[in-house]
Amino acid sequence: MQLGLSVSDSDVSSFTPLVVLELADDTKAEAITWLLNRIRDKQKNGGAELLVDQLLFPAQDGQKSNPNVFVVGSTLQRLLKGAEDVGLFKEFQDGIMRGFTYANRESFKDFYGDGEGFLSDAECQYIIKHELDTLRAKNEEHVPGYPKVKLYPGKSVVRRLQSKGVLVQYFPLHNKEDLKRLSFSWYKKIKLSFQPLDDIRHYFGEGLALYFGFLEYFTFALVPMALIVFLEVWKRCSATFAYGWGTLSRKKAFEEPRAGFHGALGFNPITGREEPVYPSSKRQLRIYLVSVPFVLLCLYLSFYVMMVYFDMENWAISVYNENPNFGTGILLFVPSIIYAVVIEIMNLLYRYAAEFLTNWENHRLESSFQNHLVLKVLVFNFVNCFASLFYIAFVMQDMVLLRQSLATLLITSQILNQVMEAFLPYWLQRRRNKKVHKRMRRVMGDKELPLLEQVQLETEMNTYLGTFDDYLEQFLLFGYVSLFSCVYPLAAVLVVLNNITEVYSDAFKMCHVFKRPFSEPAANIGVWQLAFETMSIIAVVTNCALIGLSSQVKAYFPESETQMILIVVAIEHVLLAFKFILAFVIPDVPKDIQVKLAKLEFDSLEALKKRKILEAAET
Amino acid sequence: MQLGLSVSDSDVSSFTPLVVLELADDTKAEAITWLLNRIRDKQKNGGAELLVDQLLFPAQDGQKSNPNVFVVGSTLQRLLKGAEDVGLFKEFQDGIMRGFTYANRESFKDFYGDGEGFLSDAECQYIIKHELDTLRAKNEEHVPGYPKVKLYPGKSVVRRLQSKGVLVQYFPLHNKEDLKRLSFSWYKKIKLSFQPLDDIRHYFGEGLALYFGFLEYFTFALVPMALIVFLEVWKRCSATFAYGWGTLSRKKAFEEPRAGFHGALGFNPITGREEPVYPSSKRQLRIYLVSVPFVLLCLYLSFYVMMVYFDMENWAISVYNENPNFGTGILLFVPSIIYAVVIEIMNLLYRYAAEFLTNWENHRLESSFQNHLVLKVLVFNFVNCFASLFYIAFVMQDMVLLRQSLATLLITSQILNQVMEAFLPYWLQRRRNKKVHKRMRRVMGDKELPLLEQVQLETEMNTYLGTFDDYLEQFLLFGYVSLFSCVYPLAAVLVVLNNITEVYSDAFKMCHVFKRPFSEPAANIGVWQLAFETMSIIAVVTNCALIGLSSQVKAYFPESETQMILIVVAIEHVLLAFKFILAFVIPDVPKDIQVKLAKLEFDSLEALKKRKILEAAET
Repeated sequence: MQLGLSVSDSDVSSFTPLVVLELADDTKAEAITWLLNRIRDKQKNGGAELLVDQLLFPAQDGQKSNPNVFVVGSTLQRLLKGAEDVGLFKEFQDGIMRGFTYANRESFKDFYGDGEGFLSDAECQYIIKHELDTLRAKNEEHVPGYPKVKLYPGKSVVRRLQSKGVLVQYFPLHNKEDLKRLSFSWYKKIKLSFQPLDDIRHYFGEGLALYFGFLEYFTFALVPMALIVFLEVWKRCSATFAYGWGTLSRKKAFEEPRAGFHGALGFNPITGREEPVYPSSKRQLRIYLVSVPFVLLCLYLSFYVMMVYFDMENWAISVYNENPNFGTGILLFVPSIIYAVVIEIMNLLYRYAAEFLTNWENHRLESSFQNHLVLKVLVFNFVNCFASLFYIAFVMQDMVLLRQSLATLLITSQILNQVMEAFLPYWLQRRRNKKVHKRMRRVMGDKELPLLEQVQLETEMNTYLGTFDDYLEQFLLFGYVSLFSCVYPLAAVLVVLNNITEVYSDAFKMCHVFKRPFSEPAANIGVWQLAFETMSIIAVVTNCALIGLSSQVKAYFPESETQMILIVVAIEHVLLAFKFILAFVIPDVPKDIQVKLAKLEFDSLEALKKRKILEAAET
Repeated sequence: MQLGLSVSDSDVSSFTPLVVLELADDTKAEAITWLLNRIRDKQKNGGAELLVDQLLFPAQDGQKSNPNVFVVGSTLQRLLKGAEDVGLFKEFQDGIMRGFTYANRESFKDFYGDGEGFLSDAECQYIIKHELDTLRAKNEEHVPGYPKVKLYPGKSVVRRLQSKGVLVQYFPLHNKEDLKRLSFSWYKKIKLSFQPLDDIRHYFGEGLALYFGFLEYFTFALVPMALIVFLEVWKRCSATFAYGWGTLSRKKAFEEPRAGFHGALGFNPITGREEPVYPSSKRQLRIYLVSVPFVLLCLYLSFYVMMVYFDMENWAISVYNENPNFGTGILLFVPSIIYAVVIEIMNLLYRYAAEFLTNWENHRLESSFQNHLVLKVLVFNFVNCFASLFYIAFVMQDMVLLRQSLATLLITSQILNQVMEAFLPYWLQRRRNKKVHKRMRRVMGDKELPLLEQVQLETEMNTYLGTFDDYLEQFLLFGYVSLFSCVYPLAAVLVVLNNITEVYSDAFKMCHVFKRPFSEPAANIGVWQLAFETMSIIAVVTNCALIGLSSQVKAYFPESETQMILIVVAIEHVLLAFKFILAFVIPDVPKDIQVKLAKLEFDSLEALKKRKILEAAET
């Protein structure tokens, strides 16, 4: 972070604004005063000790803009102390990643002078988010001015305001200079090099950088079709990244209840603190009596749509056979295209339903919420996208139709995805930008107002909802490529082409379409590693089965089909065993990083011993 | 531990002897003086601060006994401080297991008065072993009197003396009273209850208690043949045990190089200390150019022996067919019995060879040594024991012969095992005991000399080499039961019977045949969990294949063999998928223990925060 860089307009705020807080425009004045005081208050009084200023937008003809927009910043010293609070790992003088401490700050590599530039932009914003999130109620029984927005000692103020709609949103601001530099090196120049992952991580944080790293890695692995080991090697890659970024050995902070979690006040058995509790038996009932039947119903619906598709397909073929010409030839593709579009729509609708249901299940932790959501979505998407292909491959055993359906599904879903994901939001965004720009110009004349304008623009941008959808898309593409790769190897080429444009469109959408997201420290790609590994195991099975069905192989065993099947099954078992042995033999963390981690642990043990000896000497 | 309990003979030593050290009988006097001084020296001078006394055996006619036998003990305070050094976990007042600290000793449950009885016998001896093992050289360049036994600062004195043969052995003493009590509740009374696992753990430590726990659990799981989930549930059981014993959350101490490891002096990249280093490339060469070919050769040999066995079998059948009577009927079983004996002998010989080779590979850590040894031994034993059965089942497809061979192999190996493992050592031990007893009586007349006699007896007992062979035996039994369970379910009954006697004979051999082993803190059964899980996966595959081969199933699909095979393969895949999903869904640690572990972690985070705030307030 470079303090004092982007803001020349000292009339607006006296510090570098990092995060924007938007309160509802009818927020009571006493609540605002109270919140600002708590944010500014000293840490020893339970405040966040951050800098905060109101942004006053000029009055405008007709449209009234929200007066309750605030920018939050911080002194450098406060940020460095916050870095210790959140447990950042940074490179030490000896090349080992160590937990940052303010007291030893001068012994860390790249710490010069007062520490300017030591923390990345994304880290500063993450620290501010953490400090805001952990701003806790003291003895207030409710938010001033809102007797119904109850508080209890230790409750996160920001989360409560957010869940009650008083706090509309808070998000980090873009840094125009850095963004320009990043987008140039990332996608604006035509290049044959890799993506600037370290810069991406610097600007957007580890979670997103790992996604782009995975996307790149996955695409390269597709070129030689080296799918059988690639996930094991990715683990090592990811560990190397995460070590260098300091997230590998970083301990997870104690997980707080998620913002939407509700229940009667009770005592947490772990912390002993008062907080809402919700009986897990009730949650189980909701899961098994509502969510599971709902998912099964959706799966049934998906099968039903599939059967309708096959009817349409048959009808198209019969029309073509009656009167084969160019028009009816094109008609042959129409059912697949319609089906592909319907699949995408069903996936989208189901996604909302799954989110609603998982929310209603009232999980206490964000991680548990995410796991249940991912499971629901993955199962449905897998069935919805691949059921027809499985049916064609193993029930109808029609390899020509399989190839054709696969191609249609793949191409249609790629096109839809790119449109829905990048071009449509971009187009909407552009229209909005122009409007804001024009409105601002009309009010202010030619006077420069970059910060106000920037905040106004970014406030209205769409929120990026995390890497979930991006990973899901890659997961489905991986399915299209791997499940039937021996029948239609061309799918890999299509996916490689898609991913090359995907890098550019994802990069663009991150930089210019969505609000800047808060950094998410991540040491690995989490549950997706498991999802991709499961898919690769299913792919071994389906490919072996497809080989067994192929006519060339059958020709080798003209007299005995049994023998052929047994050989195919044996090969499949050997391949699966090989996969598991590889997973076991290849260490997840490369040797040199293992040594560094061991050194870290050894040092902390030694330090503990020394302290004990000192303490013993004192007493 | 009860201090001052077992020793009434104050003429021999003034403290409760816990561990026996035996030096070579020609050890130089200056080395002995030096070693005793280092053991007695204060901790702040780098000593172990333990109590040590020489045992003077009376001169005997003819046979000279070793004069250099020492007993080591400790004050209670030293033991409690040592408990903190080794990181013991004990139950706190609030029911949570916490790392023991001397300063907070009074807040731990079951700590009364000066703490007598707080530490178990096994723990006291483990602490003494740890303190002896970590007695390090200071500036000595070699052991006094032995210019060739080099030392360097930080080298463990005891390990160097042991690897050079100066220290013959050191082992913990039995506690006669406790042993009497333990053996009564364990195997002397006929009972329908479970084994006294907590008492076993108290006396022998966690590693052995987990073995007996597993043995019991495994035997019970065999009764309903509930094999498909049983390993997952065992993990939870084992976690519950390990939590209560304080080994689940205990951190592993930094692993020192094993005693036999040698190499040129260099620097350890982790500790930065001087120690022997051995290039891992050299080790890899030894493994791939010598060990792997040797194992393959042994496997070939095992196959060759198998083919000889089949020739014998054929010959026996032809003899029986020529002249079928009772004599030739018995002859039918002879080849199997001979083969079973040969298998056991080959396993035994191979075991020595594998140990020699793995030693020669010069692994730095005991854990890596163990892994390589286990892998070598498991692969060979698996092939050696089961190859003939696989051949009969899937190549010859002779289910009658399979059943017969399985029974013969199983019964013969059980009988051999029990004899080799318990009765033979017991018989040898008895003979030796009587001799020592008689000799002692002759010298001392009727004067009571329990400690001297006890040490003399125990010094000459065989050393228990760890749970390796016991687990290996259970592993092979598990193979006999599970691999062909659908053809010969009776195997489970045989193994249950075997295991019931096994509990008794193992318990007896631990109490009376072997030297008492040092306690081995263990949180789980380690690599054996993986071995048993792998076996259970192989078992699913073989059983499905056997079902496919069975004539009843074939009768269901008279017209289409292909369809039958496909259905069997599908069932197999579903079973395997089910196993993996179960492994994923069942949490390895039960919920209530997860909460306790989380509470522990939360408390330590809170304590850290508080300390930081205090420190900040001070400066």
